[in-house]
Amino acid sequence: MNAESIYYPFVSVDCVVFGFDGERLKVLLIERNIKESDELYNDKKLPGSIILKDEDLDDAAIRILNELTGLKNIYLSQFHSFGSPERTKNPRDILWLEKTMKLKIERIVTVGYVALIKINRKIQVLSDNTETNWYDLKEVKKTRLAFDHEEIIQKGLEHIRYKLDREPGLFFELLPRKFTISQLRTLHDTMHQVRSDIRNFHKKVAQMPYVVALDEVEKNVPHRAARLYKFDRKKLW
Amino acid sequence: MNAESIYYPFVSVDCVVFGFDGERLKVLLIERNIKESDELYNDKKLPGSIILKDEDLDDAAIRILNELTGLKNIYLSQFHSFGSPERTKNPRDILWLEKTMKLKIERIVTVGYVALIKINRKIQVLSDNTETNWYDLKEVKKTRLAFDHEEIIQKGLEHIRYKLDREPGLFFELLPRKFTISQLRTLHDTMHQVRSDIRNFHKKVAQMPYVVALDEVEKNVPHRAARLYKFDRKKLW
Repeated sequence: MNAESIYYPFVSVDCVVFGFDGERLKVLLIERNIKESDELYNDKKLPGSIILKDEDLDDAAIRILNELTGLKNIYLSQFHSFGSPERTKNPRDILWLEKTMKLKIERIVTVGYVALIKINRKIQVLSDNTETNWYDLKEVKKTRLAFDHEEIIQKGLEHIRYKLDREPGLFFELLPRKFTISQLRTLHDTMHQVRSDIRNFHKKVAQMPYVVALDEVEKNVPHRAARLYKFDRKKLW
Repeated sequence: MNAESIYYPFVSVDCVVFGFDGERLKVLLIERNIKESDELYNDKKLPGSIILKDEDLDDAAIRILNELTGLKNIYLSQFHSFGSPERTKNPRDILWLEKTMKLKIERIVTVGYVALIKINRKIQVLSDNTETNWYDLKEVKKTRLAFDHEEIIQKGLEHIRYKLDREPGLFFELLPRKFTISQLRTLHDTMHQVRSDIRNFHKKVAQMPYVVALDEVEKNVPHRAARLYKFDRKKLW
């Protein structure tokens, strides 16, 4: 290998942050505004950052999420790295990188992480000038996204579906601390792209020792208040 | 983010190449010789390379394997990226990098791939000065390895075990084109860390339409020649 053929790409981490509002699966995206000559171009991007000097990949993901949400102890899972030179082929993305990073960047290899957040946890955006919002996953396909972030979201979704099949405890990272069986079923069905029969689902849950019925019902709901449940990790195994 | 805190790591791809010799799971390692003052230090490393300019990650892995084995169409699966700054903390590794790469390298983020090879395929090492050999996976723990390659092999093994559970077709990437049920059972048991009952295993295989009995038996074996089978991918689904 000769030195000339070597290239120094930047390395970044991008986070696909999933949330569940009780009805729909959501993803956290950041507003991106780019001033192009006279026009203002707007699209959305995943939370991400170039890794810092002496920063491990996991640590970069933790930092990004903490800066963005103020939260710690978020479930994180590295799922895939994206390194196509085509990632930065759009002059708009290059322009944006140069303006925000104050650096000439030609190529970025990014390491994708999935994060799961309880959507009712208070999110406190610590970074300046960032408008961060939850978007319906179904809407995302119709949304303009930076770089290859659409592909990253898609791969992240496949990854978390795969993981959920193996680690049922992960469902409870997305649900509020106290939840109804109806919420659990909706989340389960959304993730596995199925439509469970209500009665069968209740039977199934009754066989899960880690889903524990509370002596409480929902409050302030227009329909008949349903019983609340909690997840007991100690009973998972 | 200020420009000074940014760091330019190199990006590489490392391949954990698994093979199965009919009895044991093997991994392909390259001999590494480092001259330190008067002594020659010797250890082993995974096949890998810095990614080239305009080269995608998958393409780098394909190139590395082709240079190493002369083979194309090898099963490859990206599984994890390793980016700890500690990866290059050993002065010996730094020295080796500088000598072989003719470059000052302080940090490398590496993307791990698993490859599966039929061990009876003729391997034709195309690179100069590389001695490549198959090593018993059990021996590897007792072997001196470069960088964090022991951790990469371990994670690669976990990945392929996980995949095999979902994609039984992958077993046949490791077996010769014609194999015995005994070979399939040994591979299955090694991978899943179980000990199958011979009769039950035969019954199980009889229910797999994609494992097709041939009108042939083993040749030149000291024991009673067993029937040969082949894998029919078209019958997998």
